[in-house]
Amino acid sequence: METVLHVQGMSCGHCEKAVKDTLMKMDGVNNVAVHLDSGKVDVTYDEKKVNLDKLADKVEEQGYDVVR
Amino acid sequence: METVLHVQGMSCGHCEKAVKDTLMKMDGVNNVAVHLDSGKVDVTYDEKKVNLDKLADKVEEQGYDVVR
Repeated sequence: METVLHVQGMSCGHCEKAVKDTLMKMDGVNNVAVHLDSGKVDVTYDEKKVNLDKLADKVEEQGYDVVR
Repeated sequence: METVLHVQGMSCGHCEKAVKDTLMKMDGVNNVAVHLDSGKVDVTYDEKKVNLDKLADKVEEQGYDVVR
């Protein structure tokens, strides 16, 4: 399964790393690509293990807003 | 000795932490206060151990520009 999260408030390379790292640590997440300019985060994941809400929740826990 | 560095490119709390941590690790640096909005970084240091150029160099190594 592939999806795109729209994340607001990522402003620098540290933000990019914080979002990528937190998603990559989640069980079921296979790949993450963060696009800092657009705020889009491509996530490839196993839909049997994780879902969009859980992905978005984790990003928000890091202090960013996710457009849902 | 107290000085103010003018740092460009700090955009978020991660940047603030990166600059503060790198300066606090330097021998002779006693205190650091980062003001994200203005880009000003107050540094209290022992001038027998470190100088302005060395402080600025360390900040630039982290990927920020220092107005000299």
